[in-house]
Amino acid sequence: MPGPGAPLELREFDRPDPEPGGVLLRTLGSEVCGTDAHLWKGQLAGVPYPIIPGHVSVGQIAEIGPADASAPPPTDVSGAPLVVGQIVTFLDVYGTCGRCWYCTVGHATTRCPARKVYGVTLSADDGLLGGWSEYIYLRPGVHVVPLPAELHWRAFLAGGCGMPTALHAVTLGEIAFGDTVVVQGAGPVGLCAAVLAQLRGAGSVIVVGGPELRLDAATRFGADAVIDIGSTTPQERLATIREMTGGRGADVTIEATGAPTAVPEGMRLTRDAGRYVVVGQYTDAGDAGFNPHLDLNQKHLDIRGCWGSDVGHVHRAVRVMARYAQQFPWTELISREYALDDAQTALEDVAAQRVVKALIIP
Amino acid sequence: MPGPGAPLELREFDRPDPEPGGVLLRTLGSEVCGTDAHLWKGQLAGVPYPIIPGHVSVGQIAEIGPADASAPPPTDVSGAPLVVGQIVTFLDVYGTCGRCWYCTVGHATTRCPARKVYGVTLSADDGLLGGWSEYIYLRPGVHVVPLPAELHWRAFLAGGCGMPTALHAVTLGEIAFGDTVVVQGAGPVGLCAAVLAQLRGAGSVIVVGGPELRLDAATRFGADAVIDIGSTTPQERLATIREMTGGRGADVTIEATGAPTAVPEGMRLTRDAGRYVVVGQYTDAGDAGFNPHLDLNQKHLDIRGCWGSDVGHVHRAVRVMARYAQQFPWTELISREYALDDAQTALEDVAAQRVVKALIIP
Amino acid sequence: MPGPGAPLELREFDRPDPEPGGVLLRTLGSEVCGTDAHLWKGQLAGVPYPIIPGHVSVGQIAEIGPADASAPPPTDVSGAPLVVGQIVTFLDVYGTCGRCWYCTVGHATTRCPARKVYGVTLSADDGLLGGWSEYIYLRPGVHVVPLPAELHWRAFLAGGCGMPTALHAVTLGEIAFGDTVVVQGAGPVGLCAAVLAQLRGAGSVIVVGGPELRLDAATRFGADAVIDIGSTTPQERLATIREMTGGRGADVTIEATGAPTAVPEGMRLTRDAGRYVVVGQYTDAGDAGFNPHLDLNQKHLDIRGCWGSDVGHVHRAVRVMARYAQQFPWTELISREYALDDAQTALEDVAAQRVVKALIIP
Amino acid sequence: MPGPGAPLELREFDRPDPEPGGVLLRTLGSEVCGTDAHLWKGQLAGVPYPIIPGHVSVGQIAEIGPADASAPPPTDVSGAPLVVGQIVTFLDVYGTCGRCWYCTVGHATTRCPARKVYGVTLSADDGLLGGWSEYIYLRPGVHVVPLPAELHWRAFLAGGCGMPTALHAVTLGEIAFGDTVVVQGAGPVGLCAAVLAQLRGAGSVIVVGGPELRLDAATRFGADAVIDIGSTTPQERLATIREMTGGRGADVTIEATGAPTAVPEGMRLTRDAGRYVVVGQYTDAGDAGFNPHLDLNQKHLDIRGCWGSDVGHVHRAVRVMARYAQQFPWTELISREYALDDAQTALEDVAAQRVVKALIIP
Repeated sequence: MPGPGAPLELREFDRPDPEPGGVLLRTLGSEVCGTDAHLWKGQLAGVPYPIIPGHVSVGQIAEIGPADASAPPPTDVSGAPLVVGQIVTFLDVYGTCGRCWYCTVGHATTRCPARKVYGVTLSADDGLLGGWSEYIYLRPGVHVVPLPAELHWRAFLAGGCGMPTALHAVTLGEIAFGDTVVVQGAGPVGLCAAVLAQLRGAGSVIVVGGPELRLDAATRFGADAVIDIGSTTPQERLATIREMTGGRGADVTIEATGAPTAVPEGMRLTRDAGRYVVVGQYTDAGDAGFNPHLDLNQKHLDIRGCWGSDVGHVHRAVRVMARYAQQFPWTELISREYALDDAQTALEDVAAQRVVKALIIP
Repeated sequence: MPGPGAPLELREFDRPDPEPGGVLLRTLGSEVCGTDAHLWKGQLAGVPYPIIPGHVSVGQIAEIGPADASAPPPTDVSGAPLVVGQIVTFLDVYGTCGRCWYCTVGHATTRCPARKVYGVTLSADDGLLGGWSEYIYLRPGVHVVPLPAELHWRAFLAGGCGMPTALHAVTLGEIAFGDTVVVQGAGPVGLCAAVLAQLRGAGSVIVVGGPELRLDAATRFGADAVIDIGSTTPQERLATIREMTGGRGADVTIEATGAPTAVPEGMRLTRDAGRYVVVGQYTDAGDAGFNPHLDLNQKHLDIRGCWGSDVGHVHRAVRVMARYAQQFPWTELISREYALDDAQTALEDVAAQRVVKALIIP
Repeated sequence: MPGPGAPLELREFDRPDPEPGGVLLRTLGSEVCGTDAHLWKGQLAGVPYPIIPGHVSVGQIAEIGPADASAPPPTDVSGAPLVVGQIVTFLDVYGTCGRCWYCTVGHATTRCPARKVYGVTLSADDGLLGGWSEYIYLRPGVHVVPLPAELHWRAFLAGGCGMPTALHAVTLGEIAFGDTVVVQGAGPVGLCAAVLAQLRGAGSVIVVGGPELRLDAATRFGADAVIDIGSTTPQERLATIREMTGGRGADVTIEATGAPTAVPEGMRLTRDAGRYVVVGQYTDAGDAGFNPHLDLNQKHLDIRGCWGSDVGHVHRAVRVMARYAQQFPWTELISREYALDDAQTALEDVAAQRVVKALIIP
Repeated sequence: MPGPGAPLELREFDRPDPEPGGVLLRTLGSEVCGTDAHLWKGQLAGVPYPIIPGHVSVGQIAEIGPADASAPPPTDVSGAPLVVGQIVTFLDVYGTCGRCWYCTVGHATTRCPARKVYGVTLSADDGLLGGWSEYIYLRPGVHVVPLPAELHWRAFLAGGCGMPTALHAVTLGEIAFGDTVVVQGAGPVGLCAAVLAQLRGAGSVIVVGGPELRLDAATRFGADAVIDIGSTTPQERLATIREMTGGRGADVTIEATGAPTAVPEGMRLTRDAGRYVVVGQYTDAGDAGFNPHLDLNQKHLDIRGCWGSDVGHVHRAVRVMARYAQQFPWTELISREYALDDAQTALEDVAAQRVVKALIIP
């Protein structure tokens, strides 16, 4: 991705020699997510174009850098040494410093100024630091998470970055057994949230979104009801959800849309004293208006912004996807797979919401 | 149940006329739970024998008391008026005052001194205040929870009081996605906890208990592993669970056994900085020893005693059982049903752990 | 208060005879709060004018209704019987049903539809149900909280309803030791919040508000810094607070202003991953705009609407005010006391922010 | 400290040259805490004798290692570069890996196997890695916390490691406004907990401990009541605390004693549905017995083991001590200061509880 708006280019790189602590992956697949479309449209600040997109990927370990005094052999989070041939994913974020105020006092590592993101804030000029590539070079310190045998790598990528993101959001939602959960948005994050709400024992899961392709996926993955935003007004949606909830509204609402107007709507869809998690406003798409008295204070609503994931979220996402793979056929979320030289089409299909989940298979 | 140790007797009562706010149920079924065995053995203090046992029951509304100025027509928690013919359950606990320190400041209504419990702390001399009876009289103020069409009353009773109890315990356990959960005990509370842990997205559920009949049920209801306490030592169990968890132990352990020695064992089965919920020590079965340094402080363990349920737990249990009835065939938990004149056998079967769940069908 | 906008009138009532469970208070004092100004301007919906204003009051028990079978002798929350001559306050809210969905499942009793509020939602046509009166009649079921000897009734009223309201808000703020706390608003709620933040071990408390009279009170009550909204722009305030906090913003912000634009400003004054409690938007004063990406999601802010108090908040407020009375000279918050026939002046002084706290002394 | 039980020796070391990222401190003072007495008695496992004791110390920066590519200039947690001449403390724990399961998934960094502790798990053979020394060498990566001008270094050391430890424990205690807090133990941790409970707005703080010297300090630092364990039985203490709390017991109890029998006693001193934090069982002093039914389950008690501190706790402790230095005259906690060659006496005075807080002034 040479720059905002410019067509993707295929480039050749030398195969890197891993330094001590580094790991070279042979890429098996990488996802195309909404963030990649945002990157292409230049909607994120501070991106060092050219970049190799692809922040959530799976590969097979091809080579491990030599151990030396400064860099012990790389391990996974459980402390087991990595092995050539292993199939692994990795957290796109690395470099979190462990020393700054946010890391040590605020305990909000996603706000660490030192963090770097594969496929987003690392330049192609610095190496194979993104997933849409035959090989990915993992610098020393990147967190590597092996996939267990029960979880095929395609199944993991079917969730992609949507799964740890949704896992973070649903965790913040503190869903109680039997709660009615409304999910705004039927993209990968929304669909993963709808599944995970069922794995918190929700009493009912309602997905508000579109288009039909995605709502059908929501239904196949267990949503109790879907509401198409293409054919309803906000007033109708509010009335429908009130009717489904004894007049009260959702106990917990998860926003995963990207549209600013969805936020005040979500506040209204949530019951008094309910909880609202906003995870979809990943780029600046403008302002929204709300009524502080009616929508927040009198309602005594609890609103939680959710941004970014840490290695714990990825580790847990892998565990959950492996454990419940029988119940939820993850790979059905994959609409289409694209070769590297077809990445431009993939990007356009994602931007146009023509697919649920698109993969790049180099 | 005329008194501790004495054989059960069948008695005839006049059919009561409901007072304003009262409701008469035609009993469909009532459960036999471990508490009933404790009652029979005289292990609970303050029981006003003779009592009619049976604290969790389902019935059909036969008659509703006349409304008057002091008692508006009885409603369910959503405010809908009750109707003759409806199939309902009710919270065995009523009379919580809403005015004492525990109700208003401590927000621990299970500690309200005014609370009364159907089938436990209400005497048969005062009426049909227990479930092992053809009719049950619900005094004004008893919380009534209708069963939705998707949840057959037998399915609800298959969980019985074990389900809201386990729901309370699992909620306190704050299971995170992907956690390893150990459940100590394979009786109704333990089995329900093992199911509910899966509905919190546990990564692995291990049931430690017995006998085989109950462990088989645990496996059928999704436990990833079972450990038979009849054929293992505490040291072996600790070693097995450490091995399953990268040497760390369970993230969350739920105790549902009734045996004091299970408590220090459960502390050890839990990982450092994990959480341990103790719900099974419902009667005084003696002391246990532990090491405050090793088992608690250095471990920085979080231990939570869990006792009693409120109407929210029953309401949520009904919602969850109805929503996930396809996935979990609740009625398979019922080992046997007994007529009223066979209640003595039921009690003995439960006390001897010859059954998973026993029902009285009057 | 005969109706919105109309001048207050002094009326004579017969002294009521307490029914069983009822209590008659000889009023010692009652506060004038911002809500009374809102009531007078007709800014609250559903008010059954004429009303006797005054929802937080202190009185001496003049008479207690006779006990009978339906109404045991009234007690305080600790269960001690009330005694003629005792000096007490009471929770303005009563009638919370203990049976509806919000009371039993949602555990949000402030949303119970049955709740009634002394001085707000009870009509003068129904009796002495407000504090600006020589006597106040407490219906059966009203929660009575005796004042301990260490807390003079004037000191309690100096906090008035601001204290339990602020206590609720500060509790929701979950201030950690050493946190920087910004309080928006220097009225009674804001001042009480500034004090209570110090009683949570805040590292620094900054009050943003006006006019000078109130900011001086903030300083006297321990605020580390005050910022006058009359002489600063939002940009300047943001810059000042960033400078005081290493560029990050407040760890916790408490809104207590009533102005809708204060809400987006408060979001910006709070650091990334901080917490923002909105308690001041008690009436509908219009909409506000914000940027869901910048102000909420990327910030991963936690926003909590706070509305209403329960008896636990009043009980705790009394305990705290009594315990820390040496450290905080509460009565200095009282700017002026007014006789009953001067209540109109009191109302106008409060509406014009000419006083910090005004009392009616009948 | 050459080994368990052996008399302390004074040794000479060469003044170290800081490596890149390292910092050399000229020691101003170091505390003697109960852990040092445990170390001397050989009650901690895995200690690499000989060691230089002293894990919480204050010094003036004498020299900073040269910056190079691998080690940027050392900074404090707010990101400000350290400066020669600054007066600082540091977290005794360093080396937490940020990569293991406990660091990344469990979020319990005190359980990271890579952590090292100055004055405890670092050998004198490896350098000046403890505080009872004229200079202290801070290895690259040690967390340095500058003391603000308002907090004299003697005042900080008067709290010593007791303050961040108590801050951690009191935070876990989640004290609510107006709560009754019982602190078991009147050593430095207990006294700091008694102070911090007041800075959480406790309604009443009761210290149970001894000897008189320490109880007097508790009273001077604001405890509402003290109970001498030397002249009371557990039954008497239970009766006294019940009497002070309307028969209920403490809302929150903090254990800071080191005696195993204090733990079941603390469970009983706490009210039903209260919270009990165990922080004092730092070494293995044997087992204790309790009744799982009466002391835990029926009580539905919440028990939390608390062990170790992180840099956030130290940062917050410094902020709190600086902010409330007027209210609490910290230096009064210092009973006596000792020169380096008198360290043996200091150790014996601490072991015999003849002092509240002892400092080594090299």
